[in-house]
Amino acid sequence: MEFFEVVEKRRSIRKYSDKKVPTEVMNKALDAALLAPNSSNLQTWQFHWVHSEQKKKNLAVACLSQGSAESAQELLVVSVRPSLWKKTSQDILSRGTPAGLEKLMQTYYGKLIPFLYGFQILAPFKWLIFNIVGILKPTPRKPWSLRDREEICIKSAALACQNFMLAITAQDFDTCPMEGFDESRIKKILNLKFSDRIVMVISVGERVDRGVWGERYRSPRDWFIHEI
Amino acid sequence: MEFFEVVEKRRSIRKYSDKKVPTEVMNKALDAALLAPNSSNLQTWQFHWVHSEQKKKNLAVACLSQGSAESAQELLVVSVRPSLWKKTSQDILSRGTPAGLEKLMQTYYGKLIPFLYGFQILAPFKWLIFNIVGILKPTPRKPWSLRDREEICIKSAALACQNFMLAITAQDFDTCPMEGFDESRIKKILNLKFSDRIVMVISVGERVDRGVWGERYRSPRDWFIHEI
Repeated sequence: MEFFEVVEKRRSIRKYSDKKVPTEVMNKALDAALLAPNSSNLQTWQFHWVHSEQKKKNLAVACLSQGSAESAQELLVVSVRPSLWKKTSQDILSRGTPAGLEKLMQTYYGKLIPFLYGFQILAPFKWLIFNIVGILKPTPRKPWSLRDREEICIKSAALACQNFMLAITAQDFDTCPMEGFDESRIKKILNLKFSDRIVMVISVGERVDRGVWGERYRSPRDWFIHEI
Repeated sequence: MEFFEVVEKRRSIRKYSDKKVPTEVMNKALDAALLAPNSSNLQTWQFHWVHSEQKKKNLAVACLSQGSAESAQELLVVSVRPSLWKKTSQDILSRGTPAGLEKLMQTYYGKLIPFLYGFQILAPFKWLIFNIVGILKPTPRKPWSLRDREEICIKSAALACQNFMLAITAQDFDTCPMEGFDESRIKKILNLKFSDRIVMVISVGERVDRGVWGERYRSPRDWFIHEI
């Protein structure tokens, strides 16, 4: 399907038909998700494709029994595991780096990333460094806290979510991103770690006629787009 | 361009050619950005398309003088203004709601959203409510803090960023999302509010041959995709 047609067609669907979503459709969309850009290529994203009927039921309840979750053919929970940075940065370094970039990559993944993502005990000290050096010259002010690190991971995972949703639409199925859920319960259902965070739950299926809540509405464009 | 071709073609570009990006290309991509799904349709996103040559130079410096920013033809700063929820929820209510949903919309935008997004002085109290009620039944645990509210806004803005970047690719230009920047300096350059947050800076232009850093690499798929 043509790109802009996909963007136009995608709507958040609150009720799905009984039509099954072929495995290939889900896999193709998951592959598209993994091609999203992400912060420092640390790939701290996690995609939980829930097949178990019991877990799907529990998930729908944890999504506050929204129609979109209850009638979904497939449910995908997207989460982040910030601590994955260790494994992925080692993986990136171990596969050999592009010619000419060896030293840069070693410094970046071997020193800068561990300083930014690790050593959480130094958090107040990092804050201090960023803000003192920042007086003198342009300096990133984050991440210094665990919450900053989470935020970066969540942002990258959201880019992947959008790829996933558009990829489902491009294959003539529909989605709905849900943020109204009980994060603690979902983490329990999926046996996730305390430090994991749920980004969103995405329901997948085929829309029924009354599956969309009215016409798409956006406030005036000039509230959001500023040319300066 | 076909959707999956766009996803495959998009790469983060570190160096651009001198080719100008037509205004229509930028506008079409900005329109696509605004069609991304977003949390409760509160549209707290802000897109700053920087034309001023001086501001572009300053921005590139605030992006730590990355080649991608310095050689960019266009720079888009995406930020969030969480307090916009007041204006957009009023706007949504005032335009008339779809038949049958009036009461639901009034409760949602008139009561639930103000409780979740406003009354920041009640933050500890909200946390307490969510976590006590949460023992008994599925309950959203967030947003109770300002940081939670920011996180939700940033997540929605990231969905829009991905639409924007893909839409630029679909029109045969390229992008790079940048997170290595000095947030304080960028907010000063754009005269943003203290409570605004910068989500990412996106450079736009046409890639040169050496504009991509090597082959795209992702760690093994099964590190990220879990079927359960």
